[in-house]
Amino acid sequence: MKHMHVTSGSCAYDVVAGAGAWHALQTLAPDGYSSRFVLTEEQLWKRWGRKFLRGSGLRHLRTIFVPAGETSKSVRMAERVAGALLEGGADRRSLLVAFGGGVIGDLGGFVASTYMRGIDYVQAPTTVVAQVDSAIGGKTAVNVGAMKNLVGTFYPPRLVISDPTVLATLDTRAFRSGLYEVVKHAILAGERLFGELESNLELMRPSQAEALGPLLAHAALVKVEVVCADEREAGLRRVLNLGHTFGHAFEEVTHYRRFLHGEAVAWGLLAAMRLAERIEVLGPHDAARIRSLVRRVGPLPPIRDLAPGRILGLLPRDKKAVGGRVHWILPERVGKMLIEANVPPAHVRAALLDTQRAGQHA
Amino acid sequence: MKHMHVTSGSCAYDVVAGAGAWHALQTLAPDGYSSRFVLTEEQLWKRWGRKFLRGSGLRHLRTIFVPAGETSKSVRMAERVAGALLEGGADRRSLLVAFGGGVIGDLGGFVASTYMRGIDYVQAPTTVVAQVDSAIGGKTAVNVGAMKNLVGTFYPPRLVISDPTVLATLDTRAFRSGLYEVVKHAILAGERLFGELESNLELMRPSQAEALGPLLAHAALVKVEVVCADEREAGLRRVLNLGHTFGHAFEEVTHYRRFLHGEAVAWGLLAAMRLAERIEVLGPHDAARIRSLVRRVGPLPPIRDLAPGRILGLLPRDKKAVGGRVHWILPERVGKMLIEANVPPAHVRAALLDTQRAGQHA
Repeated sequence: MKHMHVTSGSCAYDVVAGAGAWHALQTLAPDGYSSRFVLTEEQLWKRWGRKFLRGSGLRHLRTIFVPAGETSKSVRMAERVAGALLEGGADRRSLLVAFGGGVIGDLGGFVASTYMRGIDYVQAPTTVVAQVDSAIGGKTAVNVGAMKNLVGTFYPPRLVISDPTVLATLDTRAFRSGLYEVVKHAILAGERLFGELESNLELMRPSQAEALGPLLAHAALVKVEVVCADEREAGLRRVLNLGHTFGHAFEEVTHYRRFLHGEAVAWGLLAAMRLAERIEVLGPHDAARIRSLVRRVGPLPPIRDLAPGRILGLLPRDKKAVGGRVHWILPERVGKMLIEANVPPAHVRAALLDTQRAGQHA
Repeated sequence: MKHMHVTSGSCAYDVVAGAGAWHALQTLAPDGYSSRFVLTEEQLWKRWGRKFLRGSGLRHLRTIFVPAGETSKSVRMAERVAGALLEGGADRRSLLVAFGGGVIGDLGGFVASTYMRGIDYVQAPTTVVAQVDSAIGGKTAVNVGAMKNLVGTFYPPRLVISDPTVLATLDTRAFRSGLYEVVKHAILAGERLFGELESNLELMRPSQAEALGPLLAHAALVKVEVVCADEREAGLRRVLNLGHTFGHAFEEVTHYRRFLHGEAVAWGLLAAMRLAERIEVLGPHDAARIRSLVRRVGPLPPIRDLAPGRILGLLPRDKKAVGGRVHWILPERVGKMLIEANVPPAHVRAALLDTQRAGQHA
């Protein structure tokens, strides 16, 4: 089991990853809270709730269920969860555990950050992407209309506990979607994690908690290190946005119906590689290596039918855009990123078209 | 004009109070923001918008209107304002000015704190209570159902600019409602402000900006000082809750329809004095002085018809309650408060009944 410690600005908390991680909840002395709530999805809780209770040692836990899926990540649902906390008697010294994937984590974190102006919460992520990425770093959010994460807060959890055992019930597609984020972390991190993935990608299966554990912990560490250096995303943290500028646009233009988040990021990574090559930031050898690893994860839903003009029109609306100008995160090589605000629109368009064309062979 | 500087934990900003305060907005170099928005009410803006623009020197400002009244302080309205910001092209470097009373300030602060995880905002309060209290301190909130301020954040404004000139169009009742909060501040602050109020209460009229200016600035300073010492309400800041425990219950039991906030606080102050006398924390002379000053502000809507059991039942639901136990803020004398968690329920009930009985002569 890997213990990692996040220290960043006003926050400090532990990320515990590996089989048995749930037990680390005892370090918070949960019985000392005035009440304890878990936010989760009913099916997930039916399958894993008893194991989680046994593993974490939590007692007198009240459950708040939200429907599975992205539609739960709404302002309205945040209000309903706050109402459920109130009904359950939650006060400022109550604890909320977010037990689920990215939707539960983002929603739970947002509710915790705003309920009575902030209560303690714990992230217990149950998907690959949540374990290596979204549960770490204290960013919370809900969507407004088609605009993903428009409303949110910076609010660190008290603890993140990631047990890979729970991944066994992920379906293949959801699992792979998370692996794309692991690939993204590897591109950011450098040769060690990237090489590990190149060698062992085919061993990564939902039920292989023992094989997954160390690799996911390593990927989580990438996020921890970036977050420690830059909690508020003023600089370094922006590298985590690699692949997300195009990725968000792919999701938005398909109304979040075609891609899982990681799949859109995978396409975003491929497009960012094209762009980095075009403006001669990234050499063809590294570009090919990265492309190959992304492709090996599995098949992706198509993008070639998407109207390029609509995708390009969405880019300046990305939250990371400043005054309508996109700051591109582009790799120079595995392990070294560049932030570039002066990319000619013609290159952006060409990179997108290249990616869409290449995509027909996916 | 009075300049006050709030420094507290992670935040530092100026509170500028007095005629001409709006001009201080220029210290933020507002033209440097990618765009500028004002959140306000249409009637208020019609009356004061041009003067505000002239006074503040703001240019290229987009207005977002919300309906007047407490119902705008909702999660749904926060979502709508976020949507309006998005439609207007707001990004992370946009500025939001909250121009209005407590509702606008709380709602605007909440939206600013959560829009793209936080943008800069300025409080330009236009009511007495907002100028001396709610606009200062970085507490933002919206209501959920009948539960006032259930959802909110701690998020400091970049600046607070309070010009008393704008109070001229307040109706008498709204103006008086704010004066009760000034009285509360005077009880907290000590003899100087309290004596000032005792001597000059009848001079306090909406149109008397010159007389109001220094006194309101003094009252605002009380809030600044408490906030500087304790941003997150762990300790000292709780004294600001004087009169609010009963006050919130009076508001809630009447579904926020009978009392203006300050009026409910006035009754809450009277009840807290009764309670402090009953448990022999406050002497009869000081109790009588405080009661007399509260009464001199003006008539209050009745409370004697309210069911005591329902009011008492709401007290443990106050946000400041911990594990169902109310921490009472009670004066020992003008200028010295006590925080007491062990008040026998029989005394609380008796203090309420005393206040309701005395209230029939109001």
